[in-house]
Amino acid sequence: MSGFFITFEGVDGCGKTTQRRLAAAWLREQGLDVLETFEPGDTPLGREIRRLLLHEADAPVPEAELLLFLADRAQHVRRVIAPALERGQIVLCDRYTDSTLAYQLAGRRLDAEAVTPALRLAEAGVRPHLTLWFDLPVREALARMRQREQTGEAATRMDGERQSFHEAVRAGFARLAEREPGRIRRVDAAGDVETVQRRVRSLLLPALESRGLIAGSADG
Amino acid sequence: MSGFFITFEGVDGCGKTTQRRLAAAWLREQGLDVLETFEPGDTPLGREIRRLLLHEADAPVPEAELLLFLADRAQHVRRVIAPALERGQIVLCDRYTDSTLAYQLAGRRLDAEAVTPALRLAEAGVRPHLTLWFDLPVREALARMRQREQTGEAATRMDGERQSFHEAVRAGFARLAEREPGRIRRVDAAGDVETVQRRVRSLLLPALESRGLIAGSADG
Repeated sequence: MSGFFITFEGVDGCGKTTQRRLAAAWLREQGLDVLETFEPGDTPLGREIRRLLLHEADAPVPEAELLLFLADRAQHVRRVIAPALERGQIVLCDRYTDSTLAYQLAGRRLDAEAVTPALRLAEAGVRPHLTLWFDLPVREALARMRQREQTGEAATRMDGERQSFHEAVRAGFARLAEREPGRIRRVDAAGDVETVQRRVRSLLLPALESRGLIAGSADG
Repeated sequence: MSGFFITFEGVDGCGKTTQRRLAAAWLREQGLDVLETFEPGDTPLGREIRRLLLHEADAPVPEAELLLFLADRAQHVRRVIAPALERGQIVLCDRYTDSTLAYQLAGRRLDAEAVTPALRLAEAGVRPHLTLWFDLPVREALARMRQREQTGEAATRMDGERQSFHEAVRAGFARLAEREPGRIRRVDAAGDVETVQRRVRSLLLPALESRGLIAGSADG
C-alpha cells in the first residue's frame, strides 16, 4: 500500500476530531490527497452498528460491545481504509484499534489474550503508520463534554461512564504509547485549538517529509 | 450449571426448527422445564443484529458477518442461555457455534486459526452437551426452501447462495460430527416430520436418562 495511515486517539472530549479536521485542511493546502474518516460508523453498515452500540433497552454486554466495534472495523477497513491507502491517499482516522484496546481492555477490563486475535482478524493487517494520542486530564475532558451537551451535541453511551472508567481508559492509552513510542506520539491536548494544532503539525511534518510526501520544512 | 444444553444444527431447509418445536413439546409432556431459543436474533439487541446481517445496500464482508454473529452470541449466551442453564432448564437452541464453523469457516472459507479465539470469546465457556445435526442432501434442502418461499416465509441472505456454498456448509457439518462424535449426533433428516421426530427422540432419550432427567425408557 502506498498511502499513509494516521489515527487520532484519546478520551472523549480531548479535541481529536477538531484537530483531525484542521490537520486535513492543512494537508490539502500542501496539495496532498486526504481522506477523513472515523470509527465507529463510517460505512452504511457501520452507522447501523453504531446505533446498536447505544441500544438502551438491551445494552450490549462488554463482549458483545467489543464484537460490534470489531464488526464495524472489519467493514470499514476493507471498504474504506484499505482501498484509500491502495489509491495512495493519506487517511486520517478518528479512533481505531488503540481505542478498542483502551476502552474495552483497560476500561471494561476484558482479557487481552482472549481479545487480541479478534482485533487482528478485524483490522486485516492494516495498522497505522502514525498515531497521535491527544492526552488531556480526565477532569478537563469531562468539562469539555459537559459543555458540548449544553450546546446540544449528541451524547454517547460512553459519556455516561464514571470518572474512574475514563481514568482507566486514559491509563490504557498511556501504556500503549509506552509500548510503541515509535508509532504512538503523545500530543498535549491542553490549551487552545491553535496551540494544539501547532503541536500536531510539528509531529506530522517530519513523518510526511521522511516519506517524501512533503518537501523541505515549511511549517504551513 | 445444572441444566442441559442441546443445539439443533444443519443447513437451511433441513427441518431443525420444526423438530426442535416437536422435541420441546414432548419434553414438556415429560414434565421437564424447557427453554426454546435460536441464533441469530433471540435478544432485543440480537434482533437488530440479525437485521444488519441482511443489510442489502452494504452487505457485511465475511469478517464483519462473522463478528456480527458472534456479537449476537455473546449477548445471547450471557443474557439467555447461561441464566436458563443456571436455573436448571433444558435449553433447546436452533443454531450455535457449529453453525458459525460450518457457514463462516467451511462456507465463507475464513481461517480457522484466526477465528477460533473469537468464537471462544463469544460463547463464554458455554458449550452444548448434545448437538443434533440434521443431515439432508443439499438438493432436497434447497427444494424445501423453494417451497417455503412460495408459502411466503421470509428468505435469508444465505438462501441466495449458490449450491456449492451449501455443499461446503454441509461438508463442514460432516467434519465437525466426525471430530466430536460423542457430542454431535447425525440425524437423517430425510422422510416425513414424524419419522424424523422418532429419530430425534431416540437420541434424546438416552442422553436425558443418563443425566437422570427422565426415568425408564418410555418412548413417548
